[in-house]
Amino acid sequence: MTTPCIITVAITGSVPTKKDNPAVPITVEEQVESTQASFEAGASLAHCHVRNDDGTTTSDPERFGRLVEGLKKHCPGMIIQLSTGGRSGTGRERGGMLPLAPDMASLSTGSCNFPTRVYENSPELVDWLASEMIKYNVKPEIEAFDLSMIFQAVKMQNEGKIKGPLHVQFVMGVKNAMPVDKATFDFYVATLKRLAPDATWTGAGIGKGQLELNRWSLEAGGHCRT
Amino acid sequence: MTTPCIITVAITGSVPTKKDNPAVPITVEEQVESTQASFEAGASLAHCHVRNDDGTTTSDPERFGRLVEGLKKHCPGMIIQLSTGGRSGTGRERGGMLPLAPDMASLSTGSCNFPTRVYENSPELVDWLASEMIKYNVKPEIEAFDLSMIFQAVKMQNEGKIKGPLHVQFVMGVKNAMPVDKATFDFYVATLKRLAPDATWTGAGIGKGQLELNRWSLEAGGHCRT
Ligand SMILES: [Zn+2]
Ligand SMILES: [Zn+2]
Ligand SMILES: [Zn+2]
Ligand SMILES: [Zn+2]
Repeated sequence: MTTPCIITVAITGSVPTKKDNPAVPITVEEQVESTQASFEAGASLAHCHVRNDDGTTTSDPERFGRLVEGLKKHCPGMIIQLSTGGRSGTGRERGGMLPLAPDMASLSTGSCNFPTRVYENSPELVDWLASEMIKYNVKPEIEAFDLSMIFQAVKMQNEGKIKGPLHVQFVMGVKNAMPVDKATFDFYVATLKRLAPDATWTGAGIGKGQLELNRWSLEAGGHCRT
Repeated sequence: MTTPCIITVAITGSVPTKKDNPAVPITVEEQVESTQASFEAGASLAHCHVRNDDGTTTSDPERFGRLVEGLKKHCPGMIIQLSTGGRSGTGRERGGMLPLAPDMASLSTGSCNFPTRVYENSPELVDWLASEMIKYNVKPEIEAFDLSMIFQAVKMQNEGKIKGPLHVQFVMGVKNAMPVDKATFDFYVATLKRLAPDATWTGAGIGKGQLELNRWSLEAGGHCRT
């Protein structure tokens, strides 16, 4: 491999609760503790969601702030990426933690369907989140749930709305969005290479597609994710 | 070419108004008249939207009913396709004309961004529109604004929610959705062929992409559209 592999650990995610799995870290303290274990095992990037005390998802900047503080203290040098995903709030609430100036934040550059609803990222919201990331010097990780989101990210970079080089995560296996499909994965990689040759990328499979996508990513020279 | 070419005429569309172009047919009478001219010139399929008297878009079943009646009388044998597109209403309103049992109706199998908003086709709405089409024996034209919508259409066919063979329209050139891109067009055609070998398809370019897409479609064996 020519690029060093960045091992990503997703902290908690936005869906599972203690009811699904009692080991899921919910409080900020639990999250810091479990991330430190991954960090010591070699993970170099933490993708972070936060929860309310009752386990529901939130975009609360205060909680994100305590998480960032804990990670900086216990995992020095780890890349911190905060989620602006739509499960944790609506509209501009979703970017309320960007003034914390984390290293990175997720940014979906389009809308699509999710298992039971529309994942809404209106053009206006996408532009606003991107402008906040420029303002606070946060590098976006483009979450591409479908092909057009790659085109849209490149267009935004060309228009100066996103600072390059792009970093894109190809997300596959979310019900009603893009399934795990090797030919599509290869086309994603080729399209990004064609439109933005300096971009970096990674693959993220949801559920049982995760291991498969990690393998494809490694073989094709992308990053990996646990 | 092995398949006969189906020339489609889009009646009015959902965006232009008399202010943009005084020749745009708005009343049902004007629509029937202009479609008859296209029919006599060789068009065999009419893709239909309807308007209120003030030119705004609507899904009003009464207006669609008068349009269908006029087309059946003046364009005998022409395939009538009614739009269930989201510019003309929200939620189940959009399928209120399906009991008219037109030959075909449009069906988007996912959500995406449009120039200024989210084009919302929730999983629940897509399933309901598809079930109404089965109930009234209406053949859907899948409107694929992005790659995952092709996968979703095939999945719905496999689950019995859409009666095969599929007919898919690849829509390119809508701002914030999929741009006009030849490599993507070729991948769309290859993907549909791989997943649903008996499917038919056509390409629709919006604005200045229209002529280009017609040419690609003809070369690759799809239908064409005026
Ligand atoms: Zn996330
Ligand atoms: Zn990465
Ligand atoms: Zn239409
Ligand atoms: Zn056709």
